[in-house]
Amino acid sequence: MQRSGVITITTDVGHKGPFTAVMKGVIYSRFPEARIVDIAEDVPVHWPPEAEFWVSRSYPYFPPGSVHLVIVDPALDGNRDILLIDYDSHFFVAPDNGLLARFLDDADGAQVFKLDIDCLPRLGIPEPDLCFHGRDVFAPVVAELAAGRTTPVSIGKACQAYTPAWLEPPEVGSSRIKGTVITFDSFGNLITNIEASHLDGLRATHVQIGGQTIPVLDNYAEATPGDYLALINSFGVVEIARAEGSAAESLGIERGAPVIAIG
Amino acid sequence: MQRSGVITITTDVGHKGPFTAVMKGVIYSRFPEARIVDIAEDVPVHWPPEAEFWVSRSYPYFPPGSVHLVIVDPALDGNRDILLIDYDSHFFVAPDNGLLARFLDDADGAQVFKLDIDCLPRLGIPEPDLCFHGRDVFAPVVAELAAGRTTPVSIGKACQAYTPAWLEPPEVGSSRIKGTVITFDSFGNLITNIEASHLDGLRATHVQIGGQTIPVLDNYAEATPGDYLALINSFGVVEIARAEGSAAESLGIERGAPVIAIG
Amino acid sequence: MQRSGVITITTDVGHKGPFTAVMKGVIYSRFPEARIVDIAEDVPVHWPPEAEFWVSRSYPYFPPGSVHLVIVDPALDGNRDILLIDYDSHFFVAPDNGLLARFLDDADGAQVFKLDIDCLPRLGIPEPDLCFHGRDVFAPVVAELAAGRTTPVSIGKACQAYTPAWLEPPEVGSSRIKGTVITFDSFGNLITNIEASHLDGLRATHVQIGGQTIPVLDNYAEATPGDYLALINSFGVVEIARAEGSAAESLGIERGAPVIAIG
Repeated sequence: MQRSGVITITTDVGHKGPFTAVMKGVIYSRFPEARIVDIAEDVPVHWPPEAEFWVSRSYPYFPPGSVHLVIVDPALDGNRDILLIDYDSHFFVAPDNGLLARFLDDADGAQVFKLDIDCLPRLGIPEPDLCFHGRDVFAPVVAELAAGRTTPVSIGKACQAYTPAWLEPPEVGSSRIKGTVITFDSFGNLITNIEASHLDGLRATHVQIGGQTIPVLDNYAEATPGDYLALINSFGVVEIARAEGSAAESLGIERGAPVIAIG
Repeated sequence: MQRSGVITITTDVGHKGPFTAVMKGVIYSRFPEARIVDIAEDVPVHWPPEAEFWVSRSYPYFPPGSVHLVIVDPALDGNRDILLIDYDSHFFVAPDNGLLARFLDDADGAQVFKLDIDCLPRLGIPEPDLCFHGRDVFAPVVAELAAGRTTPVSIGKACQAYTPAWLEPPEVGSSRIKGTVITFDSFGNLITNIEASHLDGLRATHVQIGGQTIPVLDNYAEATPGDYLALINSFGVVEIARAEGSAAESLGIERGAPVIAIG
Repeated sequence: MQRSGVITITTDVGHKGPFTAVMKGVIYSRFPEARIVDIAEDVPVHWPPEAEFWVSRSYPYFPPGSVHLVIVDPALDGNRDILLIDYDSHFFVAPDNGLLARFLDDADGAQVFKLDIDCLPRLGIPEPDLCFHGRDVFAPVVAELAAGRTTPVSIGKACQAYTPAWLEPPEVGSSRIKGTVITFDSFGNLITNIEASHLDGLRATHVQIGGQTIPVLDNYAEATPGDYLALINSFGVVEIARAEGSAAESLGIERGAPVIAIG
């Protein structure tokens, strides 16, 4: 695979402190030509599906040959494998804790490896601090991958099975689809895991969430200020919005809430 | 124009989610040598004057030949033109919704174009998603401009008139100037659109805001802790501060509030 | 010293407004090849020890020949010298207000200079705005240092004495160590200035903070959800955590609070 030199970072460390900064320092120390983009640093530690969602929806906008570092790790003990994924001309490095499992379940042709810790000395990576795998293992590994000096197959073992996903996929029935609120954006729009293709198959006209029944419209401009609407957003999934307001706040909806599309 | 390779981004998308990240991915996909700087991502969607203010005050600190992407878009429907501006050896790309109009009103010699959507296929830009022009139109266009592969004149039509600004300029009288609070910084300092030159002409000694009359001083150190002061800040405009405190909090002032300088 | 081209920024300007953006613009204007990393922008203006802590703990993860710009400046009047530090194959530029003094106290072999303002014209740096030294002095100086076009010795005078540190070092006794909470991370873990080496010498088994006596454990996984624990974190200091909770919130502890390790 031709490398692009681009590395993305998605974590739960938040915007306080130098946690992603030292990961970038480690990357630049090994691969000065890296271009590093933060996808999201504020994924809630107990809600890995948000990281899976954003990485799987965002990576196609990065150049082929990019490397995506993803860590959301509720267990905190470092006692889990690290997955190296070669898919669709991109590499992904993530803990084997179910984080990217939903993405992998649908990733036909993905080659999945478990990092062989015994290979780290060969890359000049010292034994890691268990508290901060992001800095001590993930960052140097993605730097070496992005620099084109190693590959998943050469530092990993073929992965027969990975930890299952945190969330079931939406239940797609003949007259309704039951999905989940994955996250919300800065405007308070609720972002779900119901795909445009699900909705189209059902010719869904409404969405039920938080006791409200909300019409499916084509775009924000069709709604009257203050009204709720559902639409297919720019990442190809159902989003629930409130025109000139915050759907998340006024509906009082949290991540993980159920949402049902009805035909 | 010689290009610097630097691209700045100013938006209302906030710090949640991968919205600027995918714009950066699109830019790097087309122009790997880009250096991208976030000016501000948290402009309130209904207050474009803040974006205009920061971009017009910040761009001179970037190298000539930089490209500035600015989107704050309350309408959300994508039904407005996109302006391409060539001014002072910088390019600016912004919606024609009044966002940069105040800046343009004073930009003698600026060449202003409206993006001709029909030119997009020539740049290999597919038909855009209406929800996310930032990613699907603005990002690839600024990448092509920054890479030096196109120019405003070659993808735009000369603009005869643009949407007027959101805010009137300050009213400059013989004994008072009436301006507006544009925003506040992390310290709670209130930043207004009253220029140093306005103030000097009037030899203003005080500022009235939120029922308080506040002295104009030369710098923060002249005030006693707890006292309010007004001064010319490092961007050349009147700022209202509270020594060792937050003027925004203790005055309870919001963006858009009136402020009057008196001689 | 071989330069890496990497520049880090640590400030108190927060995430609102273009304050670090214009510093980056100035840097790119002088040194287009710079790679710039934000270490932290949200250090409280009245708590410089947090900046000292993160910079001194983070710089070793950046490549040798990197330049570290650090500004937290409660005085705001610009009436203090600027230190240029050459230590451990890195350069540091910071106000002489005690900010990096604790770090310097332990930095054997550090060469410390005070910036000679009269040298600025030679670097093409105009007389600065007193309000924003970060943009007008620090940014161009670090750009010139990072580009390898100048050195601390050639634009500074050897520094005989610098302003003392804001915080005393921990009191290390025969049966207890008294330290200070420096900051907390996004998970609410409290980060102290008690070193692993202090703790080991004492064979400390417990930590006292906020009226609680908390056991020292090896890692997060040893604690039951809801329990407090102390551990050596990935930056080599004592951290107080609450398993699956926020120690900062539930203990109600602020920066600067005392913490005592007991053997």
